[in-house]
Amino acid sequence: MSPTQAIILTTELIPLGTASAIPAQGRHLSALAVQRQGAVLLFDCGEGTQFQLIRAGLKRSRIDAIFITHFHGDHFYGLMGLLSTMALLHRTEPLTVVAPEGLEAILGSLPGLVNDGLPFEVHFVEIAKGCDHAIVAETEVYTIEAQPLQHRVFTIGYRYQEKPRPGHLDVEKARAMGITDYRYYRDLKAGKAITLPDGRTVQPDEVVGPPQPGGSFAYVTDTQPCEAGIALARKVDVLYHDATFGQDLRGRALDTGHSTAREAAEVARRADAQQLLLGHFSARYKTLDTLVEEARAVFQNTEAAEELKRYVLRET
Amino acid sequence: MSPTQAIILTTELIPLGTASAIPAQGRHLSALAVQRQGAVLLFDCGEGTQFQLIRAGLKRSRIDAIFITHFHGDHFYGLMGLLSTMALLHRTEPLTVVAPEGLEAILGSLPGLVNDGLPFEVHFVEIAKGCDHAIVAETEVYTIEAQPLQHRVFTIGYRYQEKPRPGHLDVEKARAMGITDYRYYRDLKAGKAITLPDGRTVQPDEVVGPPQPGGSFAYVTDTQPCEAGIALARKVDVLYHDATFGQDLRGRALDTGHSTAREAAEVARRADAQQLLLGHFSARYKTLDTLVEEARAVFQNTEAAEELKRYVLRET
Repeated sequence: MSPTQAIILTTELIPLGTASAIPAQGRHLSALAVQRQGAVLLFDCGEGTQFQLIRAGLKRSRIDAIFITHFHGDHFYGLMGLLSTMALLHRTEPLTVVAPEGLEAILGSLPGLVNDGLPFEVHFVEIAKGCDHAIVAETEVYTIEAQPLQHRVFTIGYRYQEKPRPGHLDVEKARAMGITDYRYYRDLKAGKAITLPDGRTVQPDEVVGPPQPGGSFAYVTDTQPCEAGIALARKVDVLYHDATFGQDLRGRALDTGHSTAREAAEVARRADAQQLLLGHFSARYKTLDTLVEEARAVFQNTEAAEELKRYVLRET
Repeated sequence: MSPTQAIILTTELIPLGTASAIPAQGRHLSALAVQRQGAVLLFDCGEGTQFQLIRAGLKRSRIDAIFITHFHGDHFYGLMGLLSTMALLHRTEPLTVVAPEGLEAILGSLPGLVNDGLPFEVHFVEIAKGCDHAIVAETEVYTIEAQPLQHRVFTIGYRYQEKPRPGHLDVEKARAMGITDYRYYRDLKAGKAITLPDGRTVQPDEVVGPPQPGGSFAYVTDTQPCEAGIALARKVDVLYHDATFGQDLRGRALDTGHSTAREAAEVARRADAQQLLLGHFSARYKTLDTLVEEARAVFQNTEAAEELKRYVLRET
């Protein structure tokens, strides 16, 4: 492995639960992990998510933030147990929890949670009804954006957007210029000019290519197909979208505030997404082939999200 | 199968979760099902209990009552999801939920549960602090008794006591007397005299033995060893008892309000129980052999409760 390859980062998406409403057909309740360098972001936290994290080999201690879409039990009843377990594992690092307004009050009503004193701080970011767009989390690495979707209750969709990464360093060219020290590579990739021992100055753009766009991912569930979903999914690498029913049950999807697989594909197409992962499957579907087929007719690069599979966000 | 065998009923105990506090070593959070003729009683309902019910082949729709010991998350965070699932499965039969006082208020604070209208009635039986003994459920078949245990928070232990069953009918003797119709057997076993077509009257005690004592079971966790635990376990067929630690960690057991395996065995011996199932194991124990050994030195008929195994309460 060359020094430059060593700092290439891969972001993985790991669906933990793809069932809607009730666990069935071996599928679990809603949750999806985004992992980058071992750090984890969690989208939704249905009952049993802490067990799925163990199965996926993801460390509960490495979760930095949790994003809840809405207050139907299958999307957040695992949060209480996960917080309890973090406390029992002696977590001290603060945890960010983003959710529709009301979550802190809900958790505060449960004995032992939050109010009775977890050993770590929970930083609640609550999204008020009526808010139509917000940046809910930002680090040096990524930004997370929220927009309300169209469901039976107030529901938030999220977009995870990594910031541009340094361009590729042309190692061959650098070596030919006599640059061999790893510390020079690091500085050049960070955009800094270097001065070699022989007095020559090298500008970054002499050996480093243009910045690479960051990976992006949209988590759009539970919802009818809607403009906010399309906006969140604009040109993303991966869109995870509600596909509770097949198109033959479009009426039922409309009644319950969900999407069909075909509608999910239409969102992916209109958003110009790279890849679509269908999720939140009704318990009635033992196999998912028909849902995938109907979606592929509209948007070819579609898969049914498979629990515990690791999807690479963007090959770098 | 003879007609009399057909009405023999077997009660099974099915541990669903034997971990303490956090899921570990492949063990799940606290729950134990008692099944009789397909009807299920549930003792505790830690997160993920609804998944364990599926694995155990127990119908969620057949749960008549749920008994919660205390409000530590690992004993009741599965209740919210289970109630939601029952609602989504269109349950209409009422459900009894027995717990320390406060549960209805806790559940009422969660969106969609209880107050927002489940499609079935939840009949809450809440045990007030200070109450030192109560009959919390009674049917034609069984009685359930509650007593407070000794834990860090208000915690209830339960005893499931079946009522005496009709004595064995001596089919050989009945046939010799010319009684062959199944309906006569049923009446005789129910304690009714019968009149045969030839005019003879037969009293039940001519062909039916004395009533059989009903099976019994005590669920005693989480707790230090205590007199209430012994009283609940008096001569039971099976005692499930907190055995979080080994005797070498007795100090830690005392600090956290738990029992050691040896202490669980002492409770079983003093209560004159038939069988002891150890449970609620600390995550530190990868295997349970040492806990079982230390308990057997005090009470021979001891096992480490095995999840999803079916323990017959009493061979009949």
